[in-house]
Amino acid sequence: MAVNLSPPRPEDLLPVKGVRLGVAQAGIRKAGRSDLLLIALAEGTRVAGVFTRNRFCAAPVQVAKEHLASGRPPRALLVNTGNANAGTGKAGLADARASCARAAGLLGCNAREVLPFSTGVIMEPLPLDRIVAGLPACVADLREDNWGRAAEAIMTTDTVPKARSRRTGAAAVTGIAKGAGMIRPDMATMLGFIATDAAVSQRALERLVVDAAANSFNRISVDGDTSTNDSFVLIASGAAGRCDEAALRDAVTEVSQGLAQAIVRDGEGATKFITVRVERGRDEKECRSVAYAIAHSPLVKTAFFASDPNLGRLLAAIGNSGVRDLDVGRVELFLDDVRVSANGGRAPGYLEQDGKRVMGKSEITVRVVLKRGTAVATVWTCDLSHEYVTINAEYRT
Amino acid sequence: MAVNLSPPRPEDLLPVKGVRLGVAQAGIRKAGRSDLLLIALAEGTRVAGVFTRNRFCAAPVQVAKEHLASGRPPRALLVNTGNANAGTGKAGLADARASCARAAGLLGCNAREVLPFSTGVIMEPLPLDRIVAGLPACVADLREDNWGRAAEAIMTTDTVPKARSRRTGAAAVTGIAKGAGMIRPDMATMLGFIATDAAVSQRALERLVVDAAANSFNRISVDGDTSTNDSFVLIASGAAGRCDEAALRDAVTEVSQGLAQAIVRDGEGATKFITVRVERGRDEKECRSVAYAIAHSPLVKTAFFASDPNLGRLLAAIGNSGVRDLDVGRVELFLDDVRVSANGGRAPGYLEQDGKRVMGKSEITVRVVLKRGTAVATVWTCDLSHEYVTINAEYRT
Repeated sequence: MAVNLSPPRPEDLLPVKGVRLGVAQAGIRKAGRSDLLLIALAEGTRVAGVFTRNRFCAAPVQVAKEHLASGRPPRALLVNTGNANAGTGKAGLADARASCARAAGLLGCNAREVLPFSTGVIMEPLPLDRIVAGLPACVADLREDNWGRAAEAIMTTDTVPKARSRRTGAAAVTGIAKGAGMIRPDMATMLGFIATDAAVSQRALERLVVDAAANSFNRISVDGDTSTNDSFVLIASGAAGRCDEAALRDAVTEVSQGLAQAIVRDGEGATKFITVRVERGRDEKECRSVAYAIAHSPLVKTAFFASDPNLGRLLAAIGNSGVRDLDVGRVELFLDDVRVSANGGRAPGYLEQDGKRVMGKSEITVRVVLKRGTAVATVWTCDLSHEYVTINAEYRT
Repeated sequence: MAVNLSPPRPEDLLPVKGVRLGVAQAGIRKAGRSDLLLIALAEGTRVAGVFTRNRFCAAPVQVAKEHLASGRPPRALLVNTGNANAGTGKAGLADARASCARAAGLLGCNAREVLPFSTGVIMEPLPLDRIVAGLPACVADLREDNWGRAAEAIMTTDTVPKARSRRTGAAAVTGIAKGAGMIRPDMATMLGFIATDAAVSQRALERLVVDAAANSFNRISVDGDTSTNDSFVLIASGAAGRCDEAALRDAVTEVSQGLAQAIVRDGEGATKFITVRVERGRDEKECRSVAYAIAHSPLVKTAFFASDPNLGRLLAAIGNSGVRDLDVGRVELFLDDVRVSANGGRAPGYLEQDGKRVMGKSEITVRVVLKRGTAVATVWTCDLSHEYVTINAEYRT
């Protein structure tokens, strides 16, 4: 059960001129489910991406980076679920390249103009034949208003499709994402694709994708694991002409934050959506360290699940953040608006019933005030429930 | 249910000359349970300790460090369970000092010659009156052959008391420990007390406690959380005279490793005991990073719980270890003697049924061969089960 997350309404998802999407049921994941997505890009479209830093990065990630680095503007993205094509060695690379070649053949472009993306089971050979067999249906299905169905086609353990859209001037910004577990900073088991028809220079687009990731997908944590396949791609077709750069940045950031938060809301087994905001640190880095120490602590996360205002676990997590000269006697801690801790102990006047009231909610903000400077950082996470163990302990078959 | 862990047999626990232990039911934890331990040390006994690096370190840890630093040889250790006296601010410090003063009064020594230790609930005031009321019973109970009862008196969520003993020449080495959750390197929610009647110089004792911790208590992980109260103390009464230094080091290391492994075996919700051994790294540090990346991954730990040879999760964890120039194509991975991965993928000839057979066992060794050098590191961990969530999601009351 995702936390306060509804499926997007198709009418809310703005088409992006020059970007067409087509899906198919290729039988990679399970029968009767869309699992193959082709995104075809009009000539002149620019693309920039950020990718997992996991050293075991999957074959499609290697190929997508290679194709992007070739300097040829991509004409298509090919995405499959059900199989991650990771830990598949040389055969996996060959399969990823072959899938690009087949898509390129159908679209009349070069194989290096296709970027491959895969998500799903690791260490299993990519079912290339099924992907190839599904491609013509994707091509036949290509439409600009297909974002909602595209969001469904890239789901794995997601329970709700994730899509967001904003308008800025004449331009649309629309994106989809998937991911529900193995989520942590520096990219998660997460695919995100955002497109705009605004015209943006390649250089600005590359800056924008890094900035947007830093403020969205790299600010979430479900279980502290980083996957082999994470990819976030930003597409600008240019069809709507130039628009205000700051407004575009805001729209892209909003869409990416909305998608990133949707991933946490749909986190494996999540019953609560937690915002951890760390204020008045010396720099953003130490604020992030404190925020992640809280967001990654299994003891804190089980306390959220139990609606238990267990201040000791929160303070212990802050003490573990690795900020060496932190004066814990000065730190203040809030659950929503309730000041629960000050001076290294329970805050004067704090009543456990107030803490418990906040912890019982499905959306909670933990605010830590370090009183060392002016920097701020926010991360989003969820609780750790029985359901998380159930989902991840089920045998793969 | 602890993993292959039996309570120590009292007759296996060697008395240590000059070290007497007394316990009491002080009503701090629950009625009818021993929860107060006094360890009285003969004159001339030397003591060295290592303590939590959590910045929110508890009042007793601060006082114990202060008393050790005073240069007065300690004459007693006072340990209570049921309350950690952490996050208790100035009142907590005063309570810890007062408990030392009362014990000193009964033993006829100085308050600074008493080291306090507490474990249990955080952020609650220490019930000083109950400790004071329980002290005379501890004093009346002081005996050299009380190690088994002492092990029981320091338990919190432990299900099995933890004690180990070795003889080396004329000297005995006997130790007790507690800890079951919030366990990770750099000390866990863990108390460990090891005593020997060998004569050791203060300097050698201080080296020995650091070395022993590095090879035992700092090599275990249950849930990646580090507590506010961790303490490991090594005591040498000297009553048995000098003995071979290397043999003593081996005996102390064996006892501390036995205790550390017992903590993992009794890890909250543990159903499996996992040894992670990383070989042929460039240095020990990178071996440790890889080992902890595996030992801390919730996805890996739930796969162990499920007896699922999920190689992808293991490889993804290795890829996440932060070893920047790791060539994942060279890494080999073994589950016990089964080579499961090589060349960045499934090992030639590996059959899933063989991996599944190993994963079904209650004791599993994961061996990672990095092929970059000659360094080695081993850590011990357990799986992540439903029971872990249940234990930690129960409301404190």
